[in-house]
Formats: sequence, structure tokens, C-alpha cells
Amino acid sequence: MGGWTLDNPVFANYVFFAAVLALKVILMSPLTAYYRMTKRVFTNPEDVKTMDAKGPILNDPQVERIRRAHQNDIENIPAFWILGLLYILTDPTEFVSKILFRTYTISRIVHTISYLTGDNKRPLIYLPGMFINFFMAGTIIITFIK
Amino acid sequence: MGGWTLDNPVFANYVFFAAVLALKVILMSPLTAYYRMTKRVFTNPEDVKTMDAKGPILNDPQVERIRRAHQNDIENIPAFWILGLLYILTDPTEFVSKILFRTYTISRIVHTISYLTGDNKRPLIYLPGMFINFFMAGTIIITFIK
Amino acid sequence: MGGWTLDNPVFANYVFFAAVLALKVILMSPLTAYYRMTKRVFTNPEDVKTMDAKGPILNDPQVERIRRAHQNDIENIPAFWILGLLYILTDPTEFVSKILFRTYTISRIVHTISYLTGDNKRPLIYLPGMFINFFMAGTIIITFIK
Repeated sequence: MGGWTLDNPVFANYVFFAAVLALKVILMSPLTAYYRMTKRVFTNPEDVKTMDAKGPILNDPQVERIRRAHQNDIENIPAFWILGLLYILTDPTEFVSKILFRTYTISRIVHTISYLTGDNKRPLIYLPGMFINFFMAGTIIITFIK
Repeated sequence: MGGWTLDNPVFANYVFFAAVLALKVILMSPLTAYYRMTKRVFTNPEDVKTMDAKGPILNDPQVERIRRAHQNDIENIPAFWILGLLYILTDPTEFVSKILFRTYTISRIVHTISYLTGDNKRPLIYLPGMFINFFMAGTIIITFIK
Repeated sequence: MGGWTLDNPVFANYVFFAAVLALKVILMSPLTAYYRMTKRVFTNPEDVKTMDAKGPILNDPQVERIRRAHQNDIENIPAFWILGLLYILTDPTEFVSKILFRTYTISRIVHTISYLTGDNKRPLIYLPGMFINFFMAGTIIITFIK
């Protein structure tokens, strides 16, 4: 009944999708490391030395691109984690909440793929996730304002 | 009594202010997009092409300013989300906790306005939010250390 | 039993270590401010003016280093906050969960020290925290997938 317990199916769905999104975010770091090592592009002088690479490079297009995709994640996904958790307390139906959580998760994964491939529809792919976060924020605020 | 249930007024206050802060953070992305489109300043080559703009621009002062304000949010507000949630478990009074949550929320909103307008008192406006996060962190650690 | 209540020792351990990590993250901002003021390196024109410093400086090696260490925190620690919280719901033993939470916390603190001192073993020190986040994400997803 709108609570943070596993017998609430809305909560159980949240737990699953929040963890999938966390996995998606934490995969960005080893992916960045892979690009850096393959292209031999490092920022820290000590890494340049360890890898016997050329001096610090701060403007490799591919490395900067994955860093922007990662940055976009950390600007958006922590907001989903807290909003999704609080949205459960507004007692949504399992049907609606699952659509929101699943659509958000899929749209963030597709957004990253779109970012890394340089797809020019990336700004459109950003929109569903943004609207879901806005919708949950608005619903929580309206429900709990006094 | 100090728990994460809606009959605890401290928790109910947290839910409201945490959602207001999330709304504040997620507004930064469309605001950045608005600046980018108005000033025709894009980072990704594919966006430059879509918008028929000039080549990637990484140093527009106004766009960089909003990006720094956004970055300041994501360095601070997720810490508030977790600290506020855990602070509830230390069983604070409703009076004190509401002052903390409300002051934090207002100070972050004023901080962003101050950042975007180039107000030189911005570093001072940063301090109340910082101290509230430190106070909650200290209270939680002292309460739960063994 | 696997729930978010203080009589669950796994949860009580999480609360403590999550707060220690939050304290660690929020210390990065005043530390950055200390470097900036000592070295008189500011990004915002209004701060340059207030401090009567030289024009905006964006490439001071020491300030950029602490900013990268801070960025690494905000790319990783919010994922721990949510993963640790959800991992509790998979009902781990107190023994295993405490090792994970404690090792993660220590490894993040050592990682920052390693980053700030330019230690070339920093990438290795990154690994334990990364694997703990991956392990918790995997455990949650496997437990709650349908």
C-alpha cells in the first residue's frame, strides 16, 4: 500500500529498474578506461608515465564524447533514483509506475547508445526520460504539499 | 518515531523538500538547452549540423556558467538526498528538521540564481547548505557509530 | 529481516558507512575552495574580482586534479548509496555486507588520497570499489528479476 516494502509490487519494480540503471551508470567508467587505453589518451601525468603514452591529452573527441554521455547520466539518473523512490509513496498503480520505470530505464540506455554513436536524434531520445522525471517530481510535490 | 513512514512528520517534510530539490536539478537541463539554442552554442558535431550552427563551441561564458551551476548542484544535492533520508533515523524534532530541510532547499535555489546572475555573494550563499549537510552527516555518524 | 529498519544490523551498518561517504564527498568542496584561495585560481569573473586575483584560470594542475578526484566521487558514490540501500533487500549476511560497505568506504577514501598525491597505483585502488558496486548491482538484479 504505497510503502517501501517488497510486498508492494510498485516498490519491487522500482528496486529492479533502479539497479539496472545503476549497473548502466557504473559500466561507463570501465568503458571510458577501455577507450583511454585503446587510444592511449590520459589526463593525469602519472597515468601518461605508467602507460608510456604521450603527454596529457584533454581533447580526444571519442574520449570527450563518452565523458559527456557519462556526465549526462550523473545529471539525470540520481534524480530518478530519489524521485522513483518518493513517487512510490504517492501510491501509483502498478501498471502506470511500471511503464514509467521501464520507459525511463530503456530511454536512458538508448540515450547513451545514441550519444556514443553520434546519432543526431539524441536530443529527442532525451525527452521521454526528462518528462518522466518531471512527472514524478510534480506528482510528489502536489501530493505532499501542505 | 524516526522511521521512514508517512505518519512521521519529519519523513513527510523530507519527501516534499527532496522532491522540490529534484525538480530544481532537472530544470537545469532544459535551461541549458534553452541557452544553447538561443545562443547557437553546441558541443556535439551532430548538434552543430542539425541546428546549422557554427562548429563546436566549448567556451561560451553564459553556457559554461550554467554548466558550472548545474555541476555545483550534482556535487551537493545527491549528498543532501541521502543525508536527509538517514538523518530522519536519528529521530530529530519536526521543528529542527523542517528548518534544516527548508533552509537547505531555499539556499540551493538562491545559490543557482546567484550563480546565473554572476552575484559576487554566491560563495556566502553556498555556506548554509554546506553546513546543513555537514551537520546532518555528523549527527548520523555520531548516532550510529559503534 | 532484510528490511530498512534499524533492528536489521545490515541496515544499521549501511546507514553509518553511507554517511561517512557523504561526509567524504562534501569535504571535497571546501578543500577545492582552500586550493583555489591559496593558489588564487578562480573560474568565475566575479570571484576573480572579489579576491583581486588574476583573470579566470581554468588549467591550474592542482585545482584540476582535485576537481577530477571530486568528479570521480560523484560518478561512483551516488551509485553506492542506491545500490547499498537496495542490496539490503537481498537479505545478505551481516558479515558479508559489512565487509562490502567497509571496504567500499575505505577504498574510496584511499582513492582520493591517491588521486591528490598523484600516486600511479590510483587505477588499481579504484578496482575494489568498482567491483563491490558491480557485485551489489548483479545481486539485486538477479534477486528481483521476474
